[in-house]
Amino acid sequence: MNEFELIARLTRALPGNDSVVVGAGDDCAVLDLGLVDRFVLFKTDAVVEGVHYAKDAAPGSIGHKALARCLSDIAAMAGQPTAALVTLGLPREFDPSYVEAIYAGMTELARRYDTAITGGETTTSPERLFISIALLGMVAKDKCVLRRGAQPGDALFVTGELGGALAGKHLEFEPRLKEAHWLAAQFAIHSMIDLSDGLAGDVRHLLHASQVGAELFAPAIPVSRAARLEARTASSAKPPLVAALTDGEDFELLFTVASRDAVPLLDAWKVRFPDLSLTCIGKITSTSGVTIRGPEGLKPLTEHGYTHFA
Amino acid sequence: MNEFELIARLTRALPGNDSVVVGAGDDCAVLDLGLVDRFVLFKTDAVVEGVHYAKDAAPGSIGHKALARCLSDIAAMAGQPTAALVTLGLPREFDPSYVEAIYAGMTELARRYDTAITGGETTTSPERLFISIALLGMVAKDKCVLRRGAQPGDALFVTGELGGALAGKHLEFEPRLKEAHWLAAQFAIHSMIDLSDGLAGDVRHLLHASQVGAELFAPAIPVSRAARLEARTASSAKPPLVAALTDGEDFELLFTVASRDAVPLLDAWKVRFPDLSLTCIGKITSTSGVTIRGPEGLKPLTEHGYTHFA
Repeated sequence: MNEFELIARLTRALPGNDSVVVGAGDDCAVLDLGLVDRFVLFKTDAVVEGVHYAKDAAPGSIGHKALARCLSDIAAMAGQPTAALVTLGLPREFDPSYVEAIYAGMTELARRYDTAITGGETTTSPERLFISIALLGMVAKDKCVLRRGAQPGDALFVTGELGGALAGKHLEFEPRLKEAHWLAAQFAIHSMIDLSDGLAGDVRHLLHASQVGAELFAPAIPVSRAARLEARTASSAKPPLVAALTDGEDFELLFTVASRDAVPLLDAWKVRFPDLSLTCIGKITSTSGVTIRGPEGLKPLTEHGYTHFA
Repeated sequence: MNEFELIARLTRALPGNDSVVVGAGDDCAVLDLGLVDRFVLFKTDAVVEGVHYAKDAAPGSIGHKALARCLSDIAAMAGQPTAALVTLGLPREFDPSYVEAIYAGMTELARRYDTAITGGETTTSPERLFISIALLGMVAKDKCVLRRGAQPGDALFVTGELGGALAGKHLEFEPRLKEAHWLAAQFAIHSMIDLSDGLAGDVRHLLHASQVGAELFAPAIPVSRAARLEARTASSAKPPLVAALTDGEDFELLFTVASRDAVPLLDAWKVRFPDLSLTCIGKITSTSGVTIRGPEGLKPLTEHGYTHFA
């Protein structure tokens, strides 16, 4: 049973209450706590030594990654982060300066996005360190973007470049908070998700939530330099396009807008974010499933995104 | 370096923002998100297999304990829980029905306190299972009780009975939510904390936050039946009073009120909660430190509460 099958089984009958606008199944939970114009966003995410980062990774980068993953989920709803709590599972013998360096990485990122760190706890994890972050955010009720709003005919966009994140980006990526905020302020974004498990897997979550399908255009998919370099230097490496589709940990935004907004959006984006690419990689279809159009015509997209239980 | 020394070092310079009313250092963080009359409470807590529960504990009890610990912290602020997220760290080979039973224990408790479970995530934890819970709650601004409000002369109260929780209570305890809510509604509660590490340790957190001291009255301290039983049956066991002072995992409420409220409070409590004891165990002093009055007179309380890094 993989992660997604387990989650589907566990989330079948979760308790709700009047505060819940969106429960399990989107990038964040969405709560209405009684504010007139804003929803509260609620998210947790954990990183585990040897699973999400190598033991010899720089501790500042580990702290950065732990918080940035949650910030990326707030970005996927077009929200702004407010406050975080940090749970640290530590081996019995730990080096305080190592833990302080993890905190320094988190703190630097938190300050940049005006996110308070309001405590948390430390506990014992004998074999390996883990960091679980809980994050609260806020979003204007009329700007909150869910996974479920994609419509047939929508243009499908992705920020940045995909694949090869394990070469370094997965520890250093910048959550796309200001980009998402600008997108939701300037355009009617129909649906959005952040790419954590790989485009081929994550696009399915967006499509499933929206009950639509998609056709991707293979030559348009923005392949990262890291994925191309890896394919050239390691004979066992995936072809670059496959890496871009399946590598995971890109933490870019995948979103849809009405096709009439596609060109104005690209034009405005280039002015506002000249240093970050934005690419139209396909369109939403009314028939379910994902197909990809390449030199050999239209094929079903069979590659599956990376899952943590793979 | 123990847990409290590490936390003191890590929380020296955490980033804040305008939403933070109380950051690290109380049972929950307190946030003002713009609601006229209510604060938002924010808490995380983790349990780790072999650290917080034995591997052979009933999975429903493990789920119960994981959520109940967080609910107890919401109770300590006189708040009401709203929504929880669940992060599960699972070995690569896991039994789905075991995980479902953990969820069933959480879900049953969540329903009882109208707490939504709005998702979370699963991740890989190769050697041992962990559960990290994030919880949001709400509290009326004029009823929120902090650790820091104890005043010299206050009467110090504790709910229930203390010690011996590892015999079973630590997996089954009921968070004192309705008791705390009633207390804050009926009386001016000056300060409150939940007992997780043991009375002798936790009372110091309350005193430190309030910059006061306390004198405990040894014969008044309510010793649990489990602690007495253990002392009778195991020759190596702590004396019952020492167990009540230091065992930890009681998850009872420790709080202070003005001395003039002590008798009316006890009278009203007996009518409202006839099945749960409430005991005045001492008083707050202006001189710092904790003393305990017993058959041999007044002595400094040297027993330290259980710390997870001990």
